[in-house]
Amino acid sequence: MPRNPTLKSPWAARDRVTEREAKREAVLQTAARAFAENGYHRTSLEEIAARLGVSKPTIYYYARNKDDLIAAIAARALDEIVAAMDADEQSSALSQLSHLLRRYAEIMTTDFGQCAIVVRDARIEGTVGEGFRKSMSLIDTRIRELLILGEKDGSIAKCDIKLTSFMIAGAINEIVRWYDPAGTLAPPMIAEKFVNQLTTGLAPRK
Amino acid sequence: MPRNPTLKSPWAARDRVTEREAKREAVLQTAARAFAENGYHRTSLEEIAARLGVSKPTIYYYARNKDDLIAAIAARALDEIVAAMDADEQSSALSQLSHLLRRYAEIMTTDFGQCAIVVRDARIEGTVGEGFRKSMSLIDTRIRELLILGEKDGSIAKCDIKLTSFMIAGAINEIVRWYDPAGTLAPPMIAEKFVNQLTTGLAPRK
Repeated sequence: MPRNPTLKSPWAARDRVTEREAKREAVLQTAARAFAENGYHRTSLEEIAARLGVSKPTIYYYARNKDDLIAAIAARALDEIVAAMDADEQSSALSQLSHLLRRYAEIMTTDFGQCAIVVRDARIEGTVGEGFRKSMSLIDTRIRELLILGEKDGSIAKCDIKLTSFMIAGAINEIVRWYDPAGTLAPPMIAEKFVNQLTTGLAPRK
Repeated sequence: MPRNPTLKSPWAARDRVTEREAKREAVLQTAARAFAENGYHRTSLEEIAARLGVSKPTIYYYARNKDDLIAAIAARALDEIVAAMDADEQSSALSQLSHLLRRYAEIMTTDFGQCAIVVRDARIEGTVGEGFRKSMSLIDTRIRELLILGEKDGSIAKCDIKLTSFMIAGAINEIVRWYDPAGTLAPPMIAEKFVNQLTTGLAPRK
């Protein structure tokens, strides 16, 4: 902390940026929680402001309206999945796909993941909705690429690429509908078991 | 057809029942189509009446309100899945499960299946909603029973019963979100490929 608070220092400037980021983060986290608990339609900006102990105009500093707010939350969820898409030339396609799907499944157990599915289903228009659909499409494209690569490197059995990508995304997206934070399985374990089941299938391996 | 239409005959009585059933069927089919095309909130009873070329009061003869109407459609969808649950002691658990899941997947490509998912997500209260949740639970219980049976008869690999049942239902329920009637694959083929993929898994079989 600077000894003389009236003195402007680059540290103070950096702190202001950090503080702004921390506040934005608190708004997103609190809003995501409220949307996940009560649904999009039953959650108001007033309620989110009240949870944060700030005025409604303060919220407007971070989001123009409720659509923008939930879209920012949804975008964050997808960004975290996209971050798990990095190509790793050393690993098999199946192992890269498993890494991506585990992260995808984990995100779907969070408030942010739940908001992502709300945004998808609400078909929000405009630039925010567009950005969201672009990220969804990025993830879908990467899953299909890895299925094709896997057939080539022998780590994934030949399959109907389109149907299989739909099947995988469907199974994972629906985690938001049944995941119970009070349940006995932690998200990383759910993600692990889920990906194993998709990998090995129902029939016993000889 | 009776030669003298003024003469009351058991056939005429049966025809009236048949006619009532046919009309009810037309109402359900038309409403399911409208809901599937435009969503629940953007579809009014007026519009459904207009599609059928009848007055709105005529619709009230078949359903008290919009909730009741879509719930009846959803219940029909589930009834068709429940009808594929008959135990067949001659077949392996995996083959019985495949039969059930193929039918389940097929229903999810129909307007009726789409309405079932709308009803699930809308959490409609009261007796109609209760009946719907009871049927959903019946299907879930049967899937879990077959997974357990399959482990015993050796047709299904040991798995986490709860997570696997969620995974299967999730993958199939999401068919309503991507199925395109104008696509190249017919519903029975989609159902077949879907169940095969769930059965064999992503990793190649040695």
